[in-house]
Amino acid sequence: MKRARKSAGLSSNNLRLSQVRESFQKQGVMKLLGGRIAKLGHGIVEITARNSPAFSQQDGFVHAGIMATLADNAAGYATLSTLPPGSRVLAVEFKLNFTRPAVGDMLRGRGRVRRLGRTLSVCEVEVEARQKGKWTSCAWGSETVYCIREKAT
Amino acid sequence: MKRARKSAGLSSNNLRLSQVRESFQKQGVMKLLGGRIAKLGHGIVEITARNSPAFSQQDGFVHAGIMATLADNAAGYATLSTLPPGSRVLAVEFKLNFTRPAVGDMLRGRGRVRRLGRTLSVCEVEVEARQKGKWTSCAWGSETVYCIREKAT
Amino acid sequence: MKRARKSAGLSSNNLRLSQVRESFQKQGVMKLLGGRIAKLGHGIVEITARNSPAFSQQDGFVHAGIMATLADNAAGYATLSTLPPGSRVLAVEFKLNFTRPAVGDMLRGRGRVRRLGRTLSVCEVEVEARQKGKWTSCAWGSETVYCIREKAT
Amino acid sequence: MKRARKSAGLSSNNLRLSQVRESFQKQGVMKLLGGRIAKLGHGIVEITARNSPAFSQQDGFVHAGIMATLADNAAGYATLSTLPPGSRVLAVEFKLNFTRPAVGDMLRGRGRVRRLGRTLSVCEVEVEARQKGKWTSCAWGSETVYCIREKAT
Repeated sequence: MKRARKSAGLSSNNLRLSQVRESFQKQGVMKLLGGRIAKLGHGIVEITARNSPAFSQQDGFVHAGIMATLADNAAGYATLSTLPPGSRVLAVEFKLNFTRPAVGDMLRGRGRVRRLGRTLSVCEVEVEARQKGKWTSCAWGSETVYCIREKAT
Repeated sequence: MKRARKSAGLSSNNLRLSQVRESFQKQGVMKLLGGRIAKLGHGIVEITARNSPAFSQQDGFVHAGIMATLADNAAGYATLSTLPPGSRVLAVEFKLNFTRPAVGDMLRGRGRVRRLGRTLSVCEVEVEARQKGKWTSCAWGSETVYCIREKAT
Repeated sequence: MKRARKSAGLSSNNLRLSQVRESFQKQGVMKLLGGRIAKLGHGIVEITARNSPAFSQQDGFVHAGIMATLADNAAGYATLSTLPPGSRVLAVEFKLNFTRPAVGDMLRGRGRVRRLGRTLSVCEVEVEARQKGKWTSCAWGSETVYCIREKAT
Repeated sequence: MKRARKSAGLSSNNLRLSQVRESFQKQGVMKLLGGRIAKLGHGIVEITARNSPAFSQQDGFVHAGIMATLADNAAGYATLSTLPPGSRVLAVEFKLNFTRPAVGDMLRGRGRVRRLGRTLSVCEVEVEARQKGKWTSCAWGSETVYCIREKAT
């Protein structure tokens, strides 16, 4: 009995994670940026993208908006990874501090659910850049996500 | 005398505005998004971009990160438009609420300086989307910008 | 007919405003700060308090937290003023920029609903201080409010 | 030699921490709330206050503004604890998510410096409430602090 319930739980968890992958595929913006899911767990997601001159602001650093795009996606999908299959997520608001200029060959946005409520989740987000093999934190903040939960059937 | 000072003032203002255009040209990200400066005044900037499937999130709306890119740029350049020629700006932090799904053919990010200090400016930002000729506000918030002022020579 | 509906509307609006006054009376913190409702309209509220040495931070200015208290209350009640009688409001998050040191004899927090959804409202908030009869803006920002709407009966 | 430098460092660190205690004493608002410094280290500060009906909002929970006051103070002093003696700090902006209703007998605001620059520090803040001996996180967010550094003499 216990075993059955456990595998039901695992299967439900797998469905929650696979809905993240399916949703990610539908995003035009992730194709534009070349983003991919580098880590996917219950309540935690990392998205990476190869840096490009096309992401630059006027001084050659990665534009704050590109970092925000990675961070927002990571927060939304960290939340979706915890919701019943068929659910949807929407960004309510995000807030980012830019703590260091982002330079290097790779970018990584990380989202982690800190508090999951019925309707809202609060996530911590961070963006890092890799230069000469070393990751450096360049932006940090929070995002509130609206959860449209699929009703259990 | 007064007239001379006034034209000096105008010329200085023109230099402040033209440094915004020059800086904008250097951004890889504005080429990527097809952004252009639609309005440029002392402390106020509007940036428009034609919407594209490449900007979409999973439900077909404009991705929050694309809106943030337009808003951030508008805030940074609204600040730069008030600073002595040769100055630079950096995003300290921004915060955006997403108030309606963004759909339509055109996007517009607007930044306005609300408070200009020696080192920091506080800007109000808004992003609108145009559908069937009508502009609708989709995101609203604030940005703090760090000012690296060119020393008067 | 039209007249009847209009007076029903006014009466409903009065109930919405009077629930703000009733809720305000229940707050311990408004007694502590000596706050009072100075303006109350549909979607807009102003709260004033006499400044006091008890509100000061280390340099004698009004503490950021006192300003946040007035701003948060104004945003919450600006939202409640638009909801059916019997509804409740909760702060989801707020964000304030402190733009000038707050000094003077009176403080005023203002909240205005910018976007009212079914579940969430987004408000603009501002805090001003009065010195020698002149009001100066000292803090500005946003608040997201959660609406627990009373079901129509 | 090395030892001498190390004790000079310790002494300088002690001066940085003691300037926090001195500044805290000057705050009217901490007397009003009965706040005290419960933890003080390099870049980390905790402030506690006994809960009171005087802190309540309309439903009997601790008012968001009271939580913000504790959080803001913790962030400012976490920053000051890292600065040369004689320095000053000012709140640039803060952002708080309210994640659970705050109830109980004690409150605790915690601030931690995540990124210390020359002019700005970025802090993580959290507020907890203790009920039946158990601490629960009720608010979480960030604060940007402006550093007016005392010049080395």
